[in-house]
Order: sequence, then structure tokens, then C-alpha cells
Amino acid sequence: MVILNNVTLNKCVSTAPDKTAYAIPGEPELRSHFDKIREKAESYRSSGRKIVAVQGLGYVGAAVAAAIASAKDRSGQAKFFVIGVDLPSPSGYWKVAKMNDGLAPVISPDPEFSGSIKEAVCRSGNLCASVSEDAFAVADVIIVDIPLHVSSKISIGIDQIAIDFENFENGIRTIGRKMRDDALVLVETTVPIGASSKVIFPILEAERHGRGIDKPVLLAHAYERVMPGPNYIDSIRNYWRTFSAIDEASAAKAREFLSSFIDTGRYPLRRLYDTDSSEMAKLLENSYRATNIAFIHEWTLLAEDMGIDLFDVIDSIRVRKGTHDNMRLPGFGVGGYCLTKDQLFAQWSAVNLFNSEVILMMTLNAMNVNEKMPLHALHLLEEIAASGLRGKRIAVCGITYLPEVADTRYSPAGLLVDKLIETGAEAVVHDPFMMAWDERPEMPVSQDLEKCLNSADGIVFAVRNLEYLNLPTEILLKNRRGSMPFIVDAQNIISDEKADELHRAGCVLAGVGKGHWRKRGYNVRRM
Amino acid sequence: MVILNNVTLNKCVSTAPDKTAYAIPGEPELRSHFDKIREKAESYRSSGRKIVAVQGLGYVGAAVAAAIASAKDRSGQAKFFVIGVDLPSPSGYWKVAKMNDGLAPVISPDPEFSGSIKEAVCRSGNLCASVSEDAFAVADVIIVDIPLHVSSKISIGIDQIAIDFENFENGIRTIGRKMRDDALVLVETTVPIGASSKVIFPILEAERHGRGIDKPVLLAHAYERVMPGPNYIDSIRNYWRTFSAIDEASAAKAREFLSSFIDTGRYPLRRLYDTDSSEMAKLLENSYRATNIAFIHEWTLLAEDMGIDLFDVIDSIRVRKGTHDNMRLPGFGVGGYCLTKDQLFAQWSAVNLFNSEVILMMTLNAMNVNEKMPLHALHLLEEIAASGLRGKRIAVCGITYLPEVADTRYSPAGLLVDKLIETGAEAVVHDPFMMAWDERPEMPVSQDLEKCLNSADGIVFAVRNLEYLNLPTEILLKNRRGSMPFIVDAQNIISDEKADELHRAGCVLAGVGKGHWRKRGYNVRRM
Repeated sequence: MVILNNVTLNKCVSTAPDKTAYAIPGEPELRSHFDKIREKAESYRSSGRKIVAVQGLGYVGAAVAAAIASAKDRSGQAKFFVIGVDLPSPSGYWKVAKMNDGLAPVISPDPEFSGSIKEAVCRSGNLCASVSEDAFAVADVIIVDIPLHVSSKISIGIDQIAIDFENFENGIRTIGRKMRDDALVLVETTVPIGASSKVIFPILEAERHGRGIDKPVLLAHAYERVMPGPNYIDSIRNYWRTFSAIDEASAAKAREFLSSFIDTGRYPLRRLYDTDSSEMAKLLENSYRATNIAFIHEWTLLAEDMGIDLFDVIDSIRVRKGTHDNMRLPGFGVGGYCLTKDQLFAQWSAVNLFNSEVILMMTLNAMNVNEKMPLHALHLLEEIAASGLRGKRIAVCGITYLPEVADTRYSPAGLLVDKLIETGAEAVVHDPFMMAWDERPEMPVSQDLEKCLNSADGIVFAVRNLEYLNLPTEILLKNRRGSMPFIVDAQNIISDEKADELHRAGCVLAGVGKGHWRKRGYNVRRM
Repeated sequence: MVILNNVTLNKCVSTAPDKTAYAIPGEPELRSHFDKIREKAESYRSSGRKIVAVQGLGYVGAAVAAAIASAKDRSGQAKFFVIGVDLPSPSGYWKVAKMNDGLAPVISPDPEFSGSIKEAVCRSGNLCASVSEDAFAVADVIIVDIPLHVSSKISIGIDQIAIDFENFENGIRTIGRKMRDDALVLVETTVPIGASSKVIFPILEAERHGRGIDKPVLLAHAYERVMPGPNYIDSIRNYWRTFSAIDEASAAKAREFLSSFIDTGRYPLRRLYDTDSSEMAKLLENSYRATNIAFIHEWTLLAEDMGIDLFDVIDSIRVRKGTHDNMRLPGFGVGGYCLTKDQLFAQWSAVNLFNSEVILMMTLNAMNVNEKMPLHALHLLEEIAASGLRGKRIAVCGITYLPEVADTRYSPAGLLVDKLIETGAEAVVHDPFMMAWDERPEMPVSQDLEKCLNSADGIVFAVRNLEYLNLPTEILLKNRRGSMPFIVDAQNIISDEKADELHRAGCVLAGVGKGHWRKRGYNVRRM
């Protein structure tokens, strides 16, 4: 059977986003690879140093492994031996293989990220990766960075939210089955409120009980605030960290460990009373950000209708430090792994773990507003395209969810591209940081901005990348397909001066939050 | 007819909130009073100084008049002669009379406020008040501080919002009828977006046209950010000010005038493109604050259900300067003149002045959440009162809308008191700053906290006043009406240590945002 054969074949190969294919080794090969790791780990332990296992080598786990591996003591020696662990699966193994080659498994503009992995793997030799569960058997500290996904959003009611716990629970079960009796489990994954005490702790205890361990579980929660972008690794070491623990012994161990790679002199650790509290803190801070973004979106629509430059208005308000300086700016949409789902974790917890009838109405409404936000750029395109979008080629500039990063997870460009195609338009995409669009592998990503723009009838600036900010107007004005392009600036890329120049040259423009452009008639083709 | 007689009597007397009654003088007396003012004003003008009229002597107008009157030039001489203007009506005249007596027409804990009025009226002699419209005929700058009220909130749809423009438009009409042809009109009142250009400007122009003036109107908008509290006057002089104007000539005059009493060296003026923009800025900044308060309220309810101390959680998040440090704390409710109505101005403008279909859904929902917030304290009272609230005496501590201020406008305590009475409970109120409750003159306000508490079965701390924070637990524990009181702390007044002490002594406690108290069983009477 060809199909069965294919499945078998796929199971043996793990392909990275950059298309490098890695054959997943068999059991004996994996065992002998881990034996070498174990030997090294034990030699570290015998010199009084700790072994750390990081479970999950995605955007957070890989960065955390790199940051911990680069922690040095006063004599310049590595403090820890770090084992990055992922699954021997098509979606997991390539991360392990890359890391063992001294390469970062995820792309980041932070040179320290790839640099510290190379250094730790190839020179210091205190960082490696493995798919072996035995990594948890040698570790003094096990960090959980397995992503936890929402499998179903709200459809009918708030009790329709579903979280896909399977992978996560399996990961915790593996830890419980393998861990040393005195190892600390430190959860960094963003989890629903109550997960540490009502899900993770019982699993660990049951597994350990099965092994005859009756020592108390050491469990702490210390959520990550890793910032994608140029300060990726620095955002782990030099930033505030909140933690909580299941008991005093766990808290003491967690405090000691976190202090060993975070600059707690400048950023003192903050312990919250229980794991429920720190789990809520993470969800609340992200929900706050997302809600503030959605709030500005409705004022964006109002400002556009009223002929007001909302950027200027917000800039004038932001002088109010400590009360209004975090006001968000109009934009294209919200993406990434946190702001698009953490709200649902909180509501899910209320219903499923606390039997609470509270409905986070504003928080969830805001999430819905943010989800649909890219449709506003579509409406602006429809408004300024002379005769509809059908048959037009639209260049979408930027497919990541933040500027200057190589991360397209839940990026808002996806919805716009889908809707453009639905409308009968052709979408072409450009991104300076992405060679491919992981979530839409069928869609080629152009690296040649000029070529991409010159072939398009309409243009959307969807990400505030430097390359777009620095784009000379001449390039936008090069004649294409018969007439000057129509341009939607969804990220405050084009200055008023440039907009005026473009409009005088025959372009039609609309800008998210730029009511004054409409007032000046930029949305109508010049006669 | 007694009733008619009463009305006539009332029309001749203007009674201040402190019960002082002022007879409203007749026309001749008013004219001779103003003649003296005119004489003084002209002598100021002849020495090269400007005359300023402030229209409306309420919370903003009185403070602005005081701040401008106390502006001095380098030689220590007063820069301006200031005339505060209000109406010769029962609700207006007492403010004029008070100010002419050297007294502040509104109560403020800021000693500089009353001090500067006394100084300017009684010593420097460059501040006075009048009910004469002729004040506008002598002024170089006319500041509009007439309050503008919402007369009808949303009932069926967003097109049900109604603004009571009558007083305001009459005030503007009076200015147009009297003003010098070269005077600057500076609007400080919070107005709907579009009001300056579509309401105020046409009125002024029509009135001036009727007088044969064809010089262009000089009109600017510079919204106030006056802060009630101990830095009342300082918040005018030493804070950021945004302005806009109808044309360049108005902008230049407004800039010069604002710079003469605001420290624009430290707080440079910010000019926005047009009056629509600065009108939106004011509404947006207040809507933002109000929405952030409502956002926290739903997490407050969640934290209480989950046994979490939300104060601690928020405190841990606020370390994130510039993004999360303005997160609001759980509380009792929202009051005051701005956060309870500015949102409606924006929506009203959309519908009535801009023909926009935008609905500020989150903004308006947040306003509704805030309006009902005090009912949560009522629910907590119901939860911890052993056998319902009927027949119980409840002490409501604090009736102002902010701590340490003497201002009860739209204060949230009103709703709680109404609902308590509806429920069959007896409400008694205490406030260290209010001798009377202007909006509820029938309700006596106690100044004796101990006596008020000792007579009550239940207590609600509704305002975070120092007197409550410093209250010794012994006073709460003095026996009353048979048993220890039940206490709702809606403003984080009672520390965990005090709460524990109170509960051990037999009190029952609930706290807004204090889920951990419920977890510890403080909400149940100790056996």
C-alpha cells in the first residue's frame, strides 16, 4: 500500500522548516547516543554541578536551554550541564538534531541565541539534545516547556473551549515515570489556572507512587516572559520573573535555581502565594495587553470615519507616564502564541477547574475583535481598489506577527491572505525574515521586495519592518500592470510627506488609524 | 399661592452646599458691582496686562481661575486680572458670592487652592467674580468651563444618548454676543468630538455677524487634566497640556496664553492638528482609564472564585514598566464627572456629528460594567450577613469617588446605598471629607467614625481614605448590637494580619479581589 508506505516513511524522517530532512534513528542508536550524554552528565555531577533537562525545544525551551547553558560561575566555568529534550517524532526530532549540530532550532534575529548554542554545544560541551526519556532520570532540575494548545475555541458557549492536554500530560507522565526522587520540576509552560495543583501535581505523584517513591514532589511554576526579537536571550536573564511553588522546599529550590541564571540583583524574584496565583498572573498580563489592543481598534475605526490622525492623538496622550504611556497604536492585527489563546485558558479554568460562573466578557470580546482585525485592512483595500479586488494581485508585505522577527505562529496575515483568495484576488507575500511560511507551505515567500511590489496592483503593509520603513517612494512608483498601485498602510509605515508624494504621483492610499488621509482625499484616485 | 411664593423665594436665594444662603442681588446692584470690576480691569489693561474671564466656577473653572490669578511676572506682579463668571441663578450665584468673599467655591484638600483665592481676591486684588455678561466684553481671553451633561444614557440603542446642550450653547451665545472682536475663546470643557468646529464656532460666528463683526473668530480647545486631591492647583500648572485651534492666529494666541501660567519648559505644550483631534484625545484618555478599570473587575470576580489574592498578582505584574504598570486594582466602583460619561460623548459624536456607524462596543460595555460595580460589594454583604440584610444597619465608609477628596459627583456609593435601602437594610454613611452629601441631602453624613461603626451590624469600606487605613482593629471589635460585625473591604483597607485578627475575634469578612480570604474561611462566622 503506497499510503501506508508513505506514512511509514514520514514517521522515519523529521523535516525542519528550512527543508533539511533528518532520519529519526532507531532505538539502539538513540540508546548509545544517550549513554554518552549520561556519562558526560555524571562527570558534571561529580564535579558538584547540576544537570538540567529542558522538556520541549520550541521557541521558549530552546532559548531557555541556551540561557541556562551559558550561565557561568565566578571562575568562568559553566554552572550546568543542560540536556534539551524533544520527541522522536517527525515534528520533534529535527530540533534535537539541529541542536546537536550546534544550530538553533528556531530562527531569531538575536545573534546571542545561535551564538550561545554553538558555543555551549561545540566548545564548552555542556549543552546537548536528546529524544531519550532517560534524560529526566539524570536531571536535578526538569524544566517543562511543552506547548499547550487550545483545540477548540468558543463556538456556542464558553463551555465549548477545549484544551488539548494529551501531549502535555504525556510529557508530565514521562517525567514522573523517570525523574529522580529529589529532582525539582519547574513548569514554564503557560497553563490554565489550577493546572499545577490539579493536573500536574497529581500525575507526578501517581507516577512516583507507582515507583514506590513517597518523598514529596518538588514542583514550582515560573512562567516565562521570553520576548521574540533582538533581545531574545537577554529577556530571560535580565527581566522580572515571578514564581510560586507547591511547598516551601520546592520554593527554596526554585529560588536557588532561578537565581543562578537570572540577574536577580537587578530583577529580584517575586514569589506568589500559590501556583494558582502565578498561573493567573501570566494569563492576566497577556489578556491585559490583548484587551488594550482591541480597545484601540474601535477608536481606530472611529478616527478614520472622523478624519482624525489617531497616531498623533495617542502620541499626545502617552506623555501621561504611569497611566497612559502603554496605550497601543492602531495596527494590522494580533498574532503569536500567547495573546491569541491565553484568555481562553483562564475561561476554561473557571468552568472546568473551579466551577466558577464568572464570564470574562471583555477579555473574550477583545480576543474576538483582535482575531477579526485584519479584515479591516481588507475593507480598506476594497474601498480604494477602483473596481473591486477580483482578479487583482495584492502584495502582502510582512507575514510575521511582530516586526523584525522570524515567527509566523498565529500571524494575522493568514486571515487576510485567505480572504483575498476567497474574494478572487491573487495574494503574493513578502517577508524579509521568512524563507517559507510554515503554516502555509504552499505559498511562496518572496525575499525580493521590489519585484514583489512591482508585480502587484495593490499593496498592504502588514508588519512594521525596517525594510518597509526605509523603502524609497520611487520603488513604489515604478509603473506596473498599467496604473499606479493602491496601498493600504496598516502599520504606520508611510509618513504624511511620503503619502502626499505618492498620491500626487497617482497612487491611492488608505491607512489604518489615518483618518486625516481620507480627509485629504488620498483614498480617491487623483484626476 | 404658597408654592409660587416658594419658587419666587427660591429664585432669589442661592444656597451653597455648606448651607450658607446668599440673596441674589437685583439688576441695579449687580450693575454697580460690575462697574467697579470694569474700572479695575481697565486699569490692569492700561498697565499692559491681560483680562481673563473664566466662564463657569465649578470644580475646573474655580481652580483654573485661581491658577491664572496666581501667575506672576518676573517682578512678582500678577500677570492677569481674572474675572470668574457664573449665572445669577440659585445654583450659580453662591459660587460668585463665595469667591468675592475670598473663599473657594468648591472644597479641596489642596491648601494652595483656597490660599491662592484668598490671596488674589483679598490681597493682590486681581481676582473677582461676577454674574454679569459684561465680563466677556472686557476680557482678552475667555475660558469656557461650563459643564456639559449627558441627559440620557443608552437605553434602547446608541442613538438614545442625549446631551443637554442648552446651558452650554446659551453660554457660548452669551460670549458671542458680548466678546471683544479680538478676544480668544479657549474651550476647556470636555465636549463631544466636533463640538468646537460644528457647534461652538458657528454660534460665535453667527452672534458676531449679528453685531457686524467680520474679523475671524479666535477659537482654541485645550482640555483640562485637573486632578482632584492634594495637588489640585499644581495639576494645572505642572502638567502636560494638549491644545488645538481653529486657525494659525488662534493657535498662536492660545500657545502664548497657556505658556503664561503652565510650566511649558518642563511640560511642553502639544498642539494637535485640529479641534476634532484634541476633543477625541480627552475622550480617549478617559475611556482608556475607565475600560482598564472594568477589565480588572471581571478578573476580580474570577480571583475571588478561585481563592486568589488579586492585589498580590497585580503587584507582581506591575513591575513591567511601560506596558503593565498602569494596571488598575480591584475596587468598589467608578465615579466622578469624567469616567462616567466621556465615553458617551464619543459615541454621540459618531452618530450625530459624523454620521459614522462605528460602535464603541468595548468602551461602552466597560462603562456599563463600572456603573454596576458597587453591586458586587452588595453581593458580598449578602453573602456574609448571617440571615440576609433586611433590618440590618450597614455603615458605608466613604461616599466620595476618590480617596482624600471632597467630591461626591456620580460617586458609586450612591448605588449601594439605594440598593441597601431597597433590600430593607438601613444605611448610615461616614466620610471624613463631607459634611453633607450634595446629591442626597436627606442622608446625614457622620464625621464620627467610631460611633458610626459601633452602631452598625455590617460595614463596607468603599473609599481608601487614610482614616480607614489607620483604624485600629479594637474599634472594629467593640461590641455592637449583639454580635461582631460583618465587614466588606472593597478598597484593600484591611491587611491580611488585621483580617486574621478580626476573624479570630468573631468578625466575618469578605474583600473585593481577596479570594484568599474566602479560601481561608473568613467569610464564615467562626464557631
